[in-house]
Amino acid sequence: MSSYHPIGPVVGIIGAGQLARMTQPPAIALGVELRVLAGAPDESAARVIPDTRLGDYRDLADLREFAQGCDAITFDHEHVPTEHIRALAAGGHAVRPGADALVHAQDKAVMRERLTEIGVPCPAWARVAGPEDVAPFAAEHGWPVVLKTVRGGYDGRGVWVCRTPEDVAEAFASGVELMAEAFVPFERELAVLVARSPHGQGVSYPVVETVQQDGVCVEVLAPAPGLDQEDAAQAQRIGLQIVHELGVTGMLAVELFQTAGGLLVNELAMRPHNSGHWTIEGSATSQFEQHLRAVLDLPLGSPEMTAPVVVMANLLGGDDPDLFKRYEHVFAHDPGIKLHFYGKEVRPGRKIGHVTALGADLEETRARARHAVVYLTTGEYT
Amino acid sequence: MSSYHPIGPVVGIIGAGQLARMTQPPAIALGVELRVLAGAPDESAARVIPDTRLGDYRDLADLREFAQGCDAITFDHEHVPTEHIRALAAGGHAVRPGADALVHAQDKAVMRERLTEIGVPCPAWARVAGPEDVAPFAAEHGWPVVLKTVRGGYDGRGVWVCRTPEDVAEAFASGVELMAEAFVPFERELAVLVARSPHGQGVSYPVVETVQQDGVCVEVLAPAPGLDQEDAAQAQRIGLQIVHELGVTGMLAVELFQTAGGLLVNELAMRPHNSGHWTIEGSATSQFEQHLRAVLDLPLGSPEMTAPVVVMANLLGGDDPDLFKRYEHVFAHDPGIKLHFYGKEVRPGRKIGHVTALGADLEETRARARHAVVYLTTGEYT
Repeated sequence: MSSYHPIGPVVGIIGAGQLARMTQPPAIALGVELRVLAGAPDESAARVIPDTRLGDYRDLADLREFAQGCDAITFDHEHVPTEHIRALAAGGHAVRPGADALVHAQDKAVMRERLTEIGVPCPAWARVAGPEDVAPFAAEHGWPVVLKTVRGGYDGRGVWVCRTPEDVAEAFASGVELMAEAFVPFERELAVLVARSPHGQGVSYPVVETVQQDGVCVEVLAPAPGLDQEDAAQAQRIGLQIVHELGVTGMLAVELFQTAGGLLVNELAMRPHNSGHWTIEGSATSQFEQHLRAVLDLPLGSPEMTAPVVVMANLLGGDDPDLFKRYEHVFAHDPGIKLHFYGKEVRPGRKIGHVTALGADLEETRARARHAVVYLTTGEYT
Repeated sequence: MSSYHPIGPVVGIIGAGQLARMTQPPAIALGVELRVLAGAPDESAARVIPDTRLGDYRDLADLREFAQGCDAITFDHEHVPTEHIRALAAGGHAVRPGADALVHAQDKAVMRERLTEIGVPCPAWARVAGPEDVAPFAAEHGWPVVLKTVRGGYDGRGVWVCRTPEDVAEAFASGVELMAEAFVPFERELAVLVARSPHGQGVSYPVVETVQQDGVCVEVLAPAPGLDQEDAAQAQRIGLQIVHELGVTGMLAVELFQTAGGLLVNELAMRPHNSGHWTIEGSATSQFEQHLRAVLDLPLGSPEMTAPVVVMANLLGGDDPDLFKRYEHVFAHDPGIKLHFYGKEVRPGRKIGHVTALGADLEETRARARHAVVYLTTGEYT
């Protein structure tokens, strides 16, 4: 608990992961005092934000206590129960995004219903109560059928690509609520970041390509290489349409499939997102600053890029727990590379940071980012 | 006191002003855990750094306790007694810069002696014990004579421009140790930022123009407009010569007079400096990140500019204590302007923040920065 009076507005972030952590730098610049609700004092954001409160985001009493004195409340993740968010708002707290918007990032079936309603292109989908509902869906849309948990999945978890009825039975054996989607033979994945403030200003960042490996994003290329202007404009229109129709406050990341038949929306995240980490150095206004501006209803910042090409590569934990000694080679090799470490114990495969390279040539910039993450992860010189 | 084990190296900063505050963002990115020694819990950096220790930088026992567990120790200001710095180093602590280097930023007479010795151009100067020593100096170099406190002056404080022997008597009435310098009829003031790491790598940023009003820096123009290449190269050579000859670790700011007869060194600061705040957005590596890299003996980062023109304008407190409500106009007017507020109570004339504008045209970029600071200070639209 802080022992001084705040000078600027206080923004409470529920959750203390790397997104809250990376919000601290722009908060420092703007004079916004961050408060985080952490599960433990050594979480990523708790290490860098003095006003850390310990509590459980699933406990309404903890949330109410946390909210006292905050000028606005926002989120590091989407797992706060919707009814608790409504209760905080009913108690007079400015929760941004609000429950009516956030539910679309919490419940994939609600999201699909709403996007379909407002005419946003999505994969074919259906609510399914059991395997018996999947059979007619497969008959109409063919195999494979993608089953997804309606709530709580991320980074490829909670997704089953089913090629047979046996796979379907296995997915339902998990016991969680599922929905069905047609398998999309996409050419690549794109993402568009947009922001909206409570009084209705909207901003869109350039469309990016997200490169996935085993369901996890490994690289983001900004802007999406070779994307034609019409598709780029459509993606931005979709993003802005969604924030305005859903009444989003703050950042929205729209993950898209690019297919032969056009763009389809895959997922929504209603907060700063991995596909926008490149904006820290790569845009005049980072997604973290933008999110703060939006939740405080300040005018939004310019999304202009600071270089022709920006590449972000995620850093996954390798087998050596001491990442720091590898900085030396990476920085000596490339004085322009930017490194972001999330202050997490290194564990194999864990997302522990990212690197960003700015440049003029895509392949060269991409090679720089890759060199850094490969070396940091494995100690191998590529 | 932090309640978790650090993952990255721990850097202790003695002093908790805005320089320590602005070091927290790059520390967050690098996974470096900062610790600050503050005089009070509401100081600028103490508000944003969890591991804040309270103590007195003039008290060796406080310093020793603070230093326990730090991988390196550095400074937010130059006021730590030189003998205490030596005592910490003798105790096995990595103090960067070390006392032998730092004394040149603490004691202006020592600085002048050393710079003269290594051939760096300075104004004519002399140690003066009393008014009787000033008379022969004035006879040789003419009036006015500039008297300066040997230790402890900043932002124009501790400087007397004496036009008569009466002015000299008044300066000596202050009772502090003084030195004399010839009055320099300069064309403008420049600054060059350089960094050096313990194993001897050096980096120089582009030379900037610093615009002063009443002895306080109000604006920094990067790069210095219209500076010819030879003068720019000389300023950078001087900066690099000083860091290497003096064994500086970390950032060094060299303030220079540009005169008809060439460049003269005015002052040294051995830490991140107001003349380098533009590097936060305006350079691939900010002076704060560079200082951290240097004190940790990591390879230095690229000093390349991110835009053709960068203008930084200092924000001094106006008569309205609520700065925050003025953000709205400033951000709506200019979505690309970057604001840095230091988390200090607003008091008239107090340095409470700065703004940075990046652009292609000097006058336009300068007008944007000025518009923002004038509006934030006075509420007047220029």
